[in-house]
Amino acid sequence: MVKYATSISLDGFTAGVDQSLEDPIGVGGMRLHDWIRELAFWREAHGGEGGIETPSTAVLQSSGDNVAAHVMGRNMFGGGPGPWGDDPWNGWWGDEPPFHAPVFVVTHHGREPLECEGGTTFTFVTDGVGSALAQAKEAAAGRDVQISGGSTVARQALAAGLVDEIRLDVVPVLLSRGVRLFEDGDAFGDLEQVSAVEGRGVTHLTYRVAAS
Amino acid sequence: MVKYATSISLDGFTAGVDQSLEDPIGVGGMRLHDWIRELAFWREAHGGEGGIETPSTAVLQSSGDNVAAHVMGRNMFGGGPGPWGDDPWNGWWGDEPPFHAPVFVVTHHGREPLECEGGTTFTFVTDGVGSALAQAKEAAAGRDVQISGGSTVARQALAAGLVDEIRLDVVPVLLSRGVRLFEDGDAFGDLEQVSAVEGRGVTHLTYRVAAS
Repeated sequence: MVKYATSISLDGFTAGVDQSLEDPIGVGGMRLHDWIRELAFWREAHGGEGGIETPSTAVLQSSGDNVAAHVMGRNMFGGGPGPWGDDPWNGWWGDEPPFHAPVFVVTHHGREPLECEGGTTFTFVTDGVGSALAQAKEAAAGRDVQISGGSTVARQALAAGLVDEIRLDVVPVLLSRGVRLFEDGDAFGDLEQVSAVEGRGVTHLTYRVAAS
Repeated sequence: MVKYATSISLDGFTAGVDQSLEDPIGVGGMRLHDWIRELAFWREAHGGEGGIETPSTAVLQSSGDNVAAHVMGRNMFGGGPGPWGDDPWNGWWGDEPPFHAPVFVVTHHGREPLECEGGTTFTFVTDGVGSALAQAKEAAAGRDVQISGGSTVARQALAAGLVDEIRLDVVPVLLSRGVRLFEDGDAFGDLEQVSAVEGRGVTHLTYRVAAS
C-alpha cells in the first residue's frame, strides 16, 4: 500500500508562502508541525529527547510500523533546484536520518546513491514519481511505501492514482495563503473514511483512496 | 455565543459549481449532506421518518440544544435574487420550518416578517449580517445564535470576527470545483481545537475562534 500523510491547516494549506532556507515550510508553516515536534516519539526518532505522549503517538506508530520504503521530492531531501555540483549537500536529515529504510528522491538531476548510518539509503530517481514509487514498492517487498512529501510529489502521485491511503493531520491554524494540497480542478478518485483520531492541537483523518 | 456549522468536502468546498433550483448545493453538492439525511433525528425534524442513529446524532443534539435564534442568507431561505414581488415565495422550508425559533434572513430586499407554524418567524434584514446577528443575539437573550448558511453570509460573519465557534462536518468527498469556505487571503482570528468526533461518512471538527 502507498500512503501519504501531511499536516494541513484548517484552510487547506500544507505550507505557507515564501519558502526559504529560514522558512522551509513557508511563513507560518512551522506551526503546522508543532503537534509532532512535542511528541517524545518524534523527538527520539530525530535524535532529541523529552516530549510527551498524546493520541498522536499511536497514530504515528501504527502508521509507520509497516513502512519499508519512502518516496520524497528533492526539496524534502534538501537543497535548492538545479544540478547538485561537485560536492553535493547531503540534505536536511543529518548523518543518521530517521527513515532507516530505502528512500527514493524524485529529482531532475541524477546523483549517486547516498548511504547513511542507520539503514537509510537515498536513491535519486530522474524519471518521475511513478518510477520512484515502482522502485520503492519493489524495495518494500509487499510492505508499505510512504510518500514523505513535499506536496508537489504527493500531488503528482495523487493525480496519477498511485496513492492508496491519505492521512490529513488537520491543525487548528489558518495560514490564509500558501501551498494548497487541493487546488481547484484536482480529482483523484473516491474516498472511504477509515478513521478520525483527536490529538492535542491536531486531528488525524485517514481515508482509503479508490481509483475512480 | 455565535456558532456556524457547515458540511465541507475534504478538498474544502461547501457547495459544487452551477447552483440551481435542481442543484441547490451545486453539482455533486448534495453528497455533502448524505450523512445528515440518513439520521433519524434529522428526518424527524424535517417531517420525515425512519433513519438511523450515529455518533453525529449526539453532536447535532448538543450543538442545537442551546440555540435560540438563527441567521441565514437569502438563498438559504429560498428564491433567486431580486425583489420579492407581490406574492413572494415562502421559501424552501414549508409550513412548519425546522427552526422553531426566530430566523433573521440577510437580504437586499425588505419584506414583512413571515410567521410560520411551530414557532419559526422569518425576519428580513436589509442592513447586513452584523445587524442580523445583533438582532438574533437580542432575540436569543443570552442563548446561542446559529448561522445556518449559506457560505456567503457565513464568510462575511467570519471575516468580521463575529463568529465564536465553527464546526466543520468533513465529508469524504472531493468536489474538485465549487464554493470554497476558505479562499486565499481569508483571515479571521486564532482557532482553538474543541473536539473531533468520528461519525459515519463524516467527521465533526469543532473550533473556538478568538479574534486575533
